[in-house]
Amino acid sequence: MREVLAGAAFQLFLERGFEQTTVDDIVARAGVGRRSFFRYFPSKEDAVFPDHERCLADMTAFLEAGAGDPDPVGTVCDAARLVMRMYAAKPEFSVQRYRLTREVPGLRTYELSVVRRYERTLAGYLRGRWAGAPDGALRAEVVAAAVVAAHNNALRSWLRSGGDGDADAAVEHALGTVREAWAGGTPSVAAEPVTGAELAASRAHEDGPAEGEVIVMVARKGAPLWRVVQQVEAALGAD
Amino acid sequence: MREVLAGAAFQLFLERGFEQTTVDDIVARAGVGRRSFFRYFPSKEDAVFPDHERCLADMTAFLEAGAGDPDPVGTVCDAARLVMRMYAAKPEFSVQRYRLTREVPGLRTYELSVVRRYERTLAGYLRGRWAGAPDGALRAEVVAAAVVAAHNNALRSWLRSGGDGDADAAVEHALGTVREAWAGGTPSVAAEPVTGAELAASRAHEDGPAEGEVIVMVARKGAPLWRVVQQVEAALGAD
Repeated sequence: MREVLAGAAFQLFLERGFEQTTVDDIVARAGVGRRSFFRYFPSKEDAVFPDHERCLADMTAFLEAGAGDPDPVGTVCDAARLVMRMYAAKPEFSVQRYRLTREVPGLRTYELSVVRRYERTLAGYLRGRWAGAPDGALRAEVVAAAVVAAHNNALRSWLRSGGDGDADAAVEHALGTVREAWAGGTPSVAAEPVTGAELAASRAHEDGPAEGEVIVMVARKGAPLWRVVQQVEAALGAD
Repeated sequence: MREVLAGAAFQLFLERGFEQTTVDDIVARAGVGRRSFFRYFPSKEDAVFPDHERCLADMTAFLEAGAGDPDPVGTVCDAARLVMRMYAAKPEFSVQRYRLTREVPGLRTYELSVVRRYERTLAGYLRGRWAGAPDGALRAEVVAAAVVAAHNNALRSWLRSGGDGDADAAVEHALGTVREAWAGGTPSVAAEPVTGAELAASRAHEDGPAEGEVIVMVARKGAPLWRVVQQVEAALGAD
């Protein structure tokens, strides 16, 4: 029933425009009563984005399962990819909806609220992981915002291209810019009064970085040079 | 007249609530005609945030003046501080409005739209600065989102505390997390196929980093160790 209503609503929005379509039109097309609509959707806007609630629930479950992951930034990047996967599962619908959303200010506003909810979900996870760390809550919000911006950049490019190309690879590439900048920027590395040198590869660097991978090193002034060199050496895989 | 209307509107919102106040109530309180209101404000929501349009214009002018600044990330951080300064100029009003906004979903949505406009303004500047650089547009959006998130974290803390404390110092500290992560993350440093090693202090590092400042070094695997060491040495100010 939920999908039937969302399908009928979307067809009408494309045919007549979003503003020109009433809930009465939608239930008539779907062949159900008016109250059925509001049982499933609080508003007309919600019927345009019927999958976000489930995706938010999936994201929350994914993050709860990753409560002990050693790389919280990597975990929120993976969580963000659930959103791209939801869009990529229905490319034609996603592209049509993107075009519709561009034309209806109310839908753009709705979309901003949804984006904010994803961002808060990711920030909440990071805040938990970085609880007690210096500036943990601040960094949680900054990284969550960066992840969402990178994800949405890839998503928008994919939608603008008409849903062509490898959505998953595009979002992975975009999220790489956040991993590069932040994998070494978690509170335990950059915010504590580091007296030596701290080294963090953009991924786990036990086996040295992969070809072309970026090494980010963070050190406080005053770090002894020998210590910094030792760690650079280890990360570069130099003899 | 604009300020009189905004003042009358805000008093009524506090007295009666936002939803319960009509435009007719506002113009009656201000002693003007209904059309005067809409000459200054497109909607009731706009009267709650009367200074954002000017602040956006100031930000745009500031960024235009900084078109040649050597540190684009620093420039957008400074641009973001204009927003905090606007809030801090009227602490009591800002704190009351913050409390009102928490209670009215329509105002929160309006606020999200405003935040998004600041973010787009900052991203537009960075996109221009990084035009032609690999992933320039992507990085512009990610850095702009990070700057806005850091700024808003400081702003919200200040508002929640009732407008106590040094707002400017708080936002400077918060923006420091973005500078740390991204000053070395501009496209020319991290996205090009770097064959040697690239070094970037969190600020200009001609004179070595200041006490407690963080050095961020980005290197590709394959960078010759001597080159990396040479640059670490220079940045640490070691002999």
